[in-house]
Amino acid sequence: MNKPASTTVKILDEIKNRWSPRAFSDKPVEPEKLKRIFEAARWSASSFNEQPWRFLAGIKGQGETWDKIFYSLSEWNQKWCKTVPILVLLVCKKSFTRNDKINAWAEYDLGQAAAYISIQAMAEGLYTHQMGGFNRDTARETFNIPEDFEPTTMMAIGYYGNADALPEDMQKSEKGERSRKEISTIVFADKWNEMAAFVK
Amino acid sequence: MNKPASTTVKILDEIKNRWSPRAFSDKPVEPEKLKRIFEAARWSASSFNEQPWRFLAGIKGQGETWDKIFYSLSEWNQKWCKTVPILVLLVCKKSFTRNDKINAWAEYDLGQAAAYISIQAMAEGLYTHQMGGFNRDTARETFNIPEDFEPTTMMAIGYYGNADALPEDMQKSEKGERSRKEISTIVFADKWNEMAAFVK
Repeated sequence: MNKPASTTVKILDEIKNRWSPRAFSDKPVEPEKLKRIFEAARWSASSFNEQPWRFLAGIKGQGETWDKIFYSLSEWNQKWCKTVPILVLLVCKKSFTRNDKINAWAEYDLGQAAAYISIQAMAEGLYTHQMGGFNRDTARETFNIPEDFEPTTMMAIGYYGNADALPEDMQKSEKGERSRKEISTIVFADKWNEMAAFVK
Repeated sequence: MNKPASTTVKILDEIKNRWSPRAFSDKPVEPEKLKRIFEAARWSASSFNEQPWRFLAGIKGQGETWDKIFYSLSEWNQKWCKTVPILVLLVCKKSFTRNDKINAWAEYDLGQAAAYISIQAMAEGLYTHQMGGFNRDTARETFNIPEDFEPTTMMAIGYYGNADALPEDMQKSEKGERSRKEISTIVFADKWNEMAAFVK
């Protein structure tokens, strides 16, 4: 299902067409596509080139990773993730390796890598849906994640499926329009809350 | 100066070619390009569609925004930012608007929006360089940023300039190769630190 951003401003197709569906197909994802997706993340920017991102990638039916990620998800997310072929746990390293000090941009930079994943995935015809709704302690325990690393989000990756097969309460947002704040309320100049002239 | 990612894996050109230079040209940036860059950020993903991102965008020589951002920068960053035509302060809202609870993904989602900016900029032939080296208190005070918002990074945006015009101590990294961790050390399956088979 296509739900392009409702904008007349010309932005990259991968950015325009990316959205976060719940109706994923159970069609397997080609390993070479997965490789490209994570290679994109690898070249993301980070503070002092720390590259705080780590990924636990689960392919449904292969090993235990997918199941472990699935069982850390909230009930709500489990409802629609059942058929998702790829589930990923995204983790960031909380300190700088060069000096062991707290990295104030660990989550920020993990977010950048996640964004690269979402865009490269779209270039491959694949959709992504990020989730905060999971149990961090369960995820940490099940994968023995060291204390200096923080399980931050989970992500579903796969082809688009069938919106009508979703539980009814999820169909509304699935079929609804995408919405965003007006650009005048997020891009300022001179003063806080004062729209920058170039976004007019 | 082109410094494409040194990879044989086929990733999006905008992701492959993006890097963080310091040698920016003083050539002005077309307002319509700026508009597209921030429109891209607008369509980024966020937890509960909170869109916690806010941007203060300074155009050199227009109003006071650029100067205010510049004076919040560390001395080191000021050295190479002098000629940068666009300086941006990236801010995130720390709580969810729907329930006033802490948003654990505020910085993560701001990072996603920053990544979209970096990719859309590259599509426009523009480079970006994100910085953590600035004084958050100065930035907050100078723009009267409310307490619930956190000044998180700054970003330089512009065309490429001349590497030889940089201070000597900055030329090495400017001209050096880009480097990243091996993919086997960031994408795991089954266990922490165990490489996922598909990245081989």
